[in-house]
Amino acid sequence: MAYTRITAAEGAAMIKDGDNIGFSGFTPSGVPKAVTRALSKRAREEHEAGKPFAVGVITGASSCQSLEGDLAAAHAIKFRAPFSTNADFRNHANLGEIDYEDMHLGHMAERLRRGFYGDIDWAVIEVSAIEEYGGKCRVYLTSADGIVPTIARLAKRVILELNTFHNADARYLHDEYECLEYPYRQPIPLTGVGQRIGTEYLEIEPGKIAGVVECCIPEEARTFKPSTPDTDMIGRHVVDFFLSDMRAGRIPKCMFPIQSGVGVTGNAVMEAIGQCDDMPVVEVFSEVVQDAIVDLMLKGRISQASVAAMTVSNECLKKVYSNMDFFRSRLTLRPSELSNSAELIHRFGVIAMNTALECDIYGNENSSHVCGSRLMNGIGGSCDYERNGSISIFYTPSTAKGGKISAIVPMCSHIDSTEHDVDVIITEQGIADLRGKGPARRAEEIINNCAHPDYRPLLREYQRIATKGHCPGSLRAAFAFHDTLTRKGDMRLTDFAEYL
Amino acid sequence: MAYTRITAAEGAAMIKDGDNIGFSGFTPSGVPKAVTRALSKRAREEHEAGKPFAVGVITGASSCQSLEGDLAAAHAIKFRAPFSTNADFRNHANLGEIDYEDMHLGHMAERLRRGFYGDIDWAVIEVSAIEEYGGKCRVYLTSADGIVPTIARLAKRVILELNTFHNADARYLHDEYECLEYPYRQPIPLTGVGQRIGTEYLEIEPGKIAGVVECCIPEEARTFKPSTPDTDMIGRHVVDFFLSDMRAGRIPKCMFPIQSGVGVTGNAVMEAIGQCDDMPVVEVFSEVVQDAIVDLMLKGRISQASVAAMTVSNECLKKVYSNMDFFRSRLTLRPSELSNSAELIHRFGVIAMNTALECDIYGNENSSHVCGSRLMNGIGGSCDYERNGSISIFYTPSTAKGGKISAIVPMCSHIDSTEHDVDVIITEQGIADLRGKGPARRAEEIINNCAHPDYRPLLREYQRIATKGHCPGSLRAAFAFHDTLTRKGDMRLTDFAEYL
Repeated sequence: MAYTRITAAEGAAMIKDGDNIGFSGFTPSGVPKAVTRALSKRAREEHEAGKPFAVGVITGASSCQSLEGDLAAAHAIKFRAPFSTNADFRNHANLGEIDYEDMHLGHMAERLRRGFYGDIDWAVIEVSAIEEYGGKCRVYLTSADGIVPTIARLAKRVILELNTFHNADARYLHDEYECLEYPYRQPIPLTGVGQRIGTEYLEIEPGKIAGVVECCIPEEARTFKPSTPDTDMIGRHVVDFFLSDMRAGRIPKCMFPIQSGVGVTGNAVMEAIGQCDDMPVVEVFSEVVQDAIVDLMLKGRISQASVAAMTVSNECLKKVYSNMDFFRSRLTLRPSELSNSAELIHRFGVIAMNTALECDIYGNENSSHVCGSRLMNGIGGSCDYERNGSISIFYTPSTAKGGKISAIVPMCSHIDSTEHDVDVIITEQGIADLRGKGPARRAEEIINNCAHPDYRPLLREYQRIATKGHCPGSLRAAFAFHDTLTRKGDMRLTDFAEYL
Repeated sequence: MAYTRITAAEGAAMIKDGDNIGFSGFTPSGVPKAVTRALSKRAREEHEAGKPFAVGVITGASSCQSLEGDLAAAHAIKFRAPFSTNADFRNHANLGEIDYEDMHLGHMAERLRRGFYGDIDWAVIEVSAIEEYGGKCRVYLTSADGIVPTIARLAKRVILELNTFHNADARYLHDEYECLEYPYRQPIPLTGVGQRIGTEYLEIEPGKIAGVVECCIPEEARTFKPSTPDTDMIGRHVVDFFLSDMRAGRIPKCMFPIQSGVGVTGNAVMEAIGQCDDMPVVEVFSEVVQDAIVDLMLKGRISQASVAAMTVSNECLKKVYSNMDFFRSRLTLRPSELSNSAELIHRFGVIAMNTALECDIYGNENSSHVCGSRLMNGIGGSCDYERNGSISIFYTPSTAKGGKISAIVPMCSHIDSTEHDVDVIITEQGIADLRGKGPARRAEEIINNCAHPDYRPLLREYQRIATKGHCPGSLRAAFAFHDTLTRKGDMRLTDFAEYL
């Protein structure tokens, strides 16, 4: 191999204060973990020496503690896009330290190409193998894709992390493809979830490669809380909804491919689908596979999965690597501009299923900010799917914090998915089918079927005090639930009279 | 012609209370105007006789007074989708009389196909010609397309209005094409704005045709207010933004195709584009052509327009009909699932330009509801373009009602396009470029560049009283502007202390 081997510290030392860096990975999977750890260390050292050091961090999706968590804690992120689920990042973003653009994951590659984030000084890319072919450098990615084809091409310089924790056979899962821009853009030729249209490798201009860091570091896989009776009930409601819509002909007998957001509810929904004998074998067209999906693939309940990442435990990842003959024809890792592509989500009629932080009585949804101001995570790819798929489902337990917080509120304190993009809301209480209904009927469905019984009288009282109109509401009492929570610690103590 | 000729009254008499009707047309253009007038008359007569009579009204977009205005005034609309701009309709929707689903225009055909609106009992379709061919009935549409291919196929029965006000040559503008559903859906093969992929005619099962109503009725064309110094200034800012982005390489030298919302500001923007010698010849990929676009096509400043309707004055319509040799190769009327297609808007990188009712300091946008509750119009196709195009621009004069209303507010009282989908806000004051910026920097751009100087101190005061966080805000004072307007008639009188 002709490329200079460097240490992670040497890699980090090449990066300058203010540089804009694109990282491989999508969720914690496939994120470079050696240079990033050295970069946090370097940032703290620079700051201790009284020097400024902060960089732009651009990734495919959320990443991991050693990238965005440690860099945020080291006050070393000047800009971040498109998504984060990290506690340290969230804390420092809420302190106003970080310029964070919460952006649709499916739009990142083209926003980079169009120069919305300025020059990309570095791409740091985790790879499972490097080969030379015809004077070009071919690299093979690991457990995720994301924005790698685009940052590998746009970045002025590239650092490769050859992480031997991954199996070099990971290449057989990848389908690399980058879209052109108008006037050269063509239809994406993908007409089936399992089809391949690109290459297993990415080509990188050899002259741009600043060095290769060898390492063997496991994925910083997140663990999720176990399912609860509430999330299990949500899973069963989702399956009931599918069966009912299939009987009515609104969903075809073969099922639309499904997308399922990351997290405990998403896992519970997938398990409910797998346990229902009346459900056909399904295809997944989504951002990630989690452990539950991998298990359902092995059981034959999911036939194909097209995603941007394997967001799985390290044990599950080893299971995929050791069953590559099985998975290489069933699991495809694609760049996020394909996994989250409006064109493909629309073509396949993907059923979008995402977790809501709160929903209001008209069907608006908040997935990012607690009580309007405080960042929780962000939208991730939820809006890529809810807007362009066939049916947009949001689910959440109807209450949190032992009932002190209602997930169904008079008005969302921040709106990420509007009433125009939410077809169905599901809580453990039941299903609100909002399709073909105006605001008044939507409110009835949501209050009667989804709100917790403790909160239904309060929500009906809000309707009574509301100013009349097409979307009745009270501008003075719209956030009475949230304000009461802030002041008294329990939304159930809301007294609307205090607000009028 | 083998089909039964009927009068408009006979057509209206066939429709039963509770029926679900799909109408041709998109904006007032191409809407049937004979049966609809008879239907309002019939509804009033039924009500006078003490009988119930109300129908579901489903169209391609907004329609016209004699359809949704008169039917709403006659209390004869039980359900309506996807859009309205009519004053009578608005009044009755705000009285809570009408179940109105405000829906993306680009989604209507597939929502109909999937059965979200139940059975379609009738399609009433305005045509410019009817022919028999191989046992099938071929009809040719008039000045608009919309959801006609889908309702013509789905409806149990069809009434045709042969309106001789239109020129039979209108056929040469049409490109009829209907998408299939998964698993049969294929890439839409359109790769250029001016390309044709379908047929000039629609085929209708002859046995479904209940009758043909002959008429000669002009379009109920809306007139728009003349441009103002503010809208002219917005037009100049839009052109400045384009030129700057082309210099920076964010917009290609050939320009992305443009979409422009209906109305006075949209017309002023098109005129500014036409008047700027530094702008290249542009293509329009939009919902409608207005008079200004037709004139710019004749002048050679716009080379191609692909839309769902000619929303023009009757004089302008005659101009198109009498220059068909010119327009047939330059102007294409498509079904709204193509004119507003996520796939095509994304492929062409369309620049979305739509009018905001209000924007907040973080870039959220309201296009539908005044002070949260009262319906103004609806979203129309704005969200089809803002989400999937290359750059999403919203514009509005910074104030209304002589300065009593600020279009820039602390928090939008209803949100139709979220902060994630608004790239640029333009008022007569200037341009806020929100791309690649987090909430704090977005607020600076919007307050400094777009808010009226009268309101900047108030907006900065809101920032000072806001709860800290990633999106600083005050849940108690978020709607202080709107509440003050309601109570005191002028947002400038806002005293935040009253809300804390």
